[in-house]
Amino acid sequence: MKLKIEGIFPPIATPFVDGRVAHDRLRENLEKWNKTHLAGYVVFGSNGEAVHLDQQEKLALVDTVKQRLPQGKLLIAGTGCQSTAATVSLTNLAAEQGADAALVFTPHYYKAKMDNAALKKHYLTIADQANIPILIYNVPQFTGINVSPELVASLAEHPNIIGIKDSSGNITQIGEMIATTPPPPSFHVLAGSAGHLLAALALGASGGILALANVAPDECCMIFDDFRNGRYTEARKLQLKLLAANKAVTAGFGVAGLKAALDMVAYFGGDPRPPLLPLEEEQKNKLTEILKKANLI
Amino acid sequence: MKLKIEGIFPPIATPFVDGRVAHDRLRENLEKWNKTHLAGYVVFGSNGEAVHLDQQEKLALVDTVKQRLPQGKLLIAGTGCQSTAATVSLTNLAAEQGADAALVFTPHYYKAKMDNAALKKHYLTIADQANIPILIYNVPQFTGINVSPELVASLAEHPNIIGIKDSSGNITQIGEMIATTPPPPSFHVLAGSAGHLLAALALGASGGILALANVAPDECCMIFDDFRNGRYTEARKLQLKLLAANKAVTAGFGVAGLKAALDMVAYFGGDPRPPLLPLEEEQKNKLTEILKKANLI
Amino acid sequence: MKLKIEGIFPPIATPFVDGRVAHDRLRENLEKWNKTHLAGYVVFGSNGEAVHLDQQEKLALVDTVKQRLPQGKLLIAGTGCQSTAATVSLTNLAAEQGADAALVFTPHYYKAKMDNAALKKHYLTIADQANIPILIYNVPQFTGINVSPELVASLAEHPNIIGIKDSSGNITQIGEMIATTPPPPSFHVLAGSAGHLLAALALGASGGILALANVAPDECCMIFDDFRNGRYTEARKLQLKLLAANKAVTAGFGVAGLKAALDMVAYFGGDPRPPLLPLEEEQKNKLTEILKKANLI
Amino acid sequence: MKLKIEGIFPPIATPFVDGRVAHDRLRENLEKWNKTHLAGYVVFGSNGEAVHLDQQEKLALVDTVKQRLPQGKLLIAGTGCQSTAATVSLTNLAAEQGADAALVFTPHYYKAKMDNAALKKHYLTIADQANIPILIYNVPQFTGINVSPELVASLAEHPNIIGIKDSSGNITQIGEMIATTPPPPSFHVLAGSAGHLLAALALGASGGILALANVAPDECCMIFDDFRNGRYTEARKLQLKLLAANKAVTAGFGVAGLKAALDMVAYFGGDPRPPLLPLEEEQKNKLTEILKKANLI
Repeated sequence: MKLKIEGIFPPIATPFVDGRVAHDRLRENLEKWNKTHLAGYVVFGSNGEAVHLDQQEKLALVDTVKQRLPQGKLLIAGTGCQSTAATVSLTNLAAEQGADAALVFTPHYYKAKMDNAALKKHYLTIADQANIPILIYNVPQFTGINVSPELVASLAEHPNIIGIKDSSGNITQIGEMIATTPPPPSFHVLAGSAGHLLAALALGASGGILALANVAPDECCMIFDDFRNGRYTEARKLQLKLLAANKAVTAGFGVAGLKAALDMVAYFGGDPRPPLLPLEEEQKNKLTEILKKANLI
Repeated sequence: MKLKIEGIFPPIATPFVDGRVAHDRLRENLEKWNKTHLAGYVVFGSNGEAVHLDQQEKLALVDTVKQRLPQGKLLIAGTGCQSTAATVSLTNLAAEQGADAALVFTPHYYKAKMDNAALKKHYLTIADQANIPILIYNVPQFTGINVSPELVASLAEHPNIIGIKDSSGNITQIGEMIATTPPPPSFHVLAGSAGHLLAALALGASGGILALANVAPDECCMIFDDFRNGRYTEARKLQLKLLAANKAVTAGFGVAGLKAALDMVAYFGGDPRPPLLPLEEEQKNKLTEILKKANLI
Repeated sequence: MKLKIEGIFPPIATPFVDGRVAHDRLRENLEKWNKTHLAGYVVFGSNGEAVHLDQQEKLALVDTVKQRLPQGKLLIAGTGCQSTAATVSLTNLAAEQGADAALVFTPHYYKAKMDNAALKKHYLTIADQANIPILIYNVPQFTGINVSPELVASLAEHPNIIGIKDSSGNITQIGEMIATTPPPPSFHVLAGSAGHLLAALALGASGGILALANVAPDECCMIFDDFRNGRYTEARKLQLKLLAANKAVTAGFGVAGLKAALDMVAYFGGDPRPPLLPLEEEQKNKLTEILKKANLI
Repeated sequence: MKLKIEGIFPPIATPFVDGRVAHDRLRENLEKWNKTHLAGYVVFGSNGEAVHLDQQEKLALVDTVKQRLPQGKLLIAGTGCQSTAATVSLTNLAAEQGADAALVFTPHYYKAKMDNAALKKHYLTIADQANIPILIYNVPQFTGINVSPELVASLAEHPNIIGIKDSSGNITQIGEMIATTPPPPSFHVLAGSAGHLLAALALGASGGILALANVAPDECCMIFDDFRNGRYTEARKLQLKLLAANKAVTAGFGVAGLKAALDMVAYFGGDPRPPLLPLEEEQKNKLTEILKKANLI
């Protein structure tokens, strides 16, 4: 039976204390998130600082979240590595630990060589060998490459490739993906940022994986619920109201901003791992102001 | 009284025969467009090959369109030049010739110097000296620079700057502009391409200036009408159906593709001016196929 | 007989007083430049604010410089326009007025369509119809497109295309152009900025068209002379010494910086035309300091 | 005593057989390279597919090369990771295994946050904690970020940061780095590609880390020797002659091309790890032709 990827998922921030992953802090956060309508969690996505974690730390995160995962919520792991083989290996280890699906970014170090042929072979190999379904992760702002709608349409034919998180913010492209792939639960197109959530839903997206959902899970779920229930005006108002806050915890202040915001809204955030720098006092003041305006604090 | 910029406008292609502007062909096109629900026309925008026209040719275009302009439809002229003074001059000449508003692209040759301070002074000077209202034109794919929502919010305070056409396709940014500017008729945020029309409307855009509206005026107007009248499902279906055709006449085949498509749908298109090359036979076949799939021929 | 393009040329700044071209100020500058070893002048290149000048102003500039041009120095005009036809027309008008050669930038508004086929046809058409020899002008920082060495090698076969100014700063590419085109006077590869002058000479460039040569004509000529006469150590020392000043009058402070520097070294600079903003006081102080360190004041 | 980084270093390709690192093949390659004037080796740089190797594989590579390293040649390890802590850890493990210096790329996943402050803290922390000297590795084509000359000048003050490999190809920037850092052995500016080797030497670079030196070690060393001994004409001729071959094994065909070329010139190359695809037959034919023209086969 096909997994249904519907609704709002936060790519959860990884809490560090004294440089180590703080599983107790994570459990406290999960306790609160579990009370919301979030459809599940993404561990070690871009906002979870996947690139700052080693394999052991990643698997321990899967384990911790899995043990607190309420029935009906999904656990997705960000298992993309630069090499195909390493991605397959991590994906299956995460699956053993309890992950329901894997979110696999595009390999990108050799970006000029990551043409459709290379990416297609990469994803098909992974899909063939993975023990859980695969979601493509398109995030040009970090990788410097874009997954074309043509490639997505082709990959969507593989039964074990069940969707894409598109963080490009290119809404025309999101539309093209929706127009050229089978509908859920065969294939899911997911908004990659709260900034384009309503627009993506308006075109037929089945949900979103949203950094902002760490900090504002209820509000993000509300946009989704309002839209699904025909309350378009309310959805639009809330979408517009959240834009500044969303920008602050994504492009604006980045992962450090997301973590600072978590601290401000009574979750645990803490500092990112270096070389990411924590926010300076002035930046924190600005962030506080933005969150207040959005009624998040 | 403020001008209301609402609905769908095509940035009309400029017809050439034997290298000269073919006003008779333009009149024939206008006769057909005039029968649609188009809200007006943009002359010598990017799709009208403004950069391939001299000043005399531009003013003659204003004149020709003005003479066939039905009451209630608006005439907008693409008067942006690289220098502030030249833009003011062309804007006021177009106004004398009958233009209702001016669409002013960002100067961009010295792109590294076009920071907010330079762009702000440029637009404010123009707005002060122009005899018709100004629409900002943001088109990073041609200019290499982006107008930030912060700058737009600031420019929107000038009574003679009444809107923006944002062709960036960045729907989050379009949302930010809508969230931080006064509503129509004080300020209008317009979709810059049919690819993001529905998404922009869903966030509160008041219409669009769309290359595709040259070729598919009825369909573009239908998305607008469906949306405004609460027929969201129909709007979404039509939006998704038009994506491939829209891409073909914009990023895909460019101005030459737009003109070839006009010929295919029984308007006059003709060839663009060199260095733009006309479509090759194989490209035309592909375009025909795409237009057929979209039920445009 | 083929024109020989060898040595150092400044793309001269266009002086404005009260918004109009100040021909008297230009004549004063020329009087000083004429006493140096400069090989000639480029009028209305990028640093001459070509995009801020109308056709009449351009032709008047050719006239003024021609009348003061000492024998043996060349006059090159920046006649590139967006359309092929307009470029041909301006080139031949400049030729009538006395220009010895034309520097033709790549058309670039429709940059995605300016592939090798389009650019090749553009340049070949111009070369066929122009009454003076053509120099290709590659300046990606302003145009957003790059002329490939393959295209240059192909265009170099036309007898009326006699060289290229490459401002990309990509020294490998400059080497490729030198390696795949016939030597001067058949084809000349020219450095496009003083920052890569020595490197380009080391690979076989025949000279340079350098913004810095407006301000430091003697020093730029000295690098060329030192290199040609085997004084490599001296050439290298001077090259390294001028880097900061060169950056300041190009990428750093742009045309406004070049003009401010002219004023500082006892030429006439004045302000650029808007939307370019003149330097602020703090920027001027920084510029003064940089020029002092380079012993230019 | 300061390490002197002078001359030509290949960032050696990592040979794989049946998906595993083939240490015997590597030893055979080393035997041949050891007979040349190469100044040493870089293991697991970009061309060594660092991103496709796990830590154990990396350390085994250091060990294998160290055991065959002739006296006087240096062993440099590419120890850059995304996190500061992981980089320190890998650097010191490589040092224990025998590496003489570490080449540390810029962390880049969160590229928008890698400003001068973040990069400075990153490199200073590493330099403080590393047991071997650090070379900065600037490679915008892979990382999407550039290390500014200002930052380099500042980092060069740390006694344990002894140089930079700049692969940007921006020769003006290389000049700026040379002009603003102390001379070798305090700080070494190294060409990052054979395409700009001579140009960099002309400005004062102390050598180069060059993919092409895998395939054409003698020729790369010859350019260096010719230049150092005042044979400028010979150096220039050889530099121009190698440009096409260099492009083929770098930007042109990438790591797969470098490996195919190794096979063609009687070293062992083999295939890269997926997702990098091996060359197709047609590409191999083209590569053969290019290497023949450069007299490398």
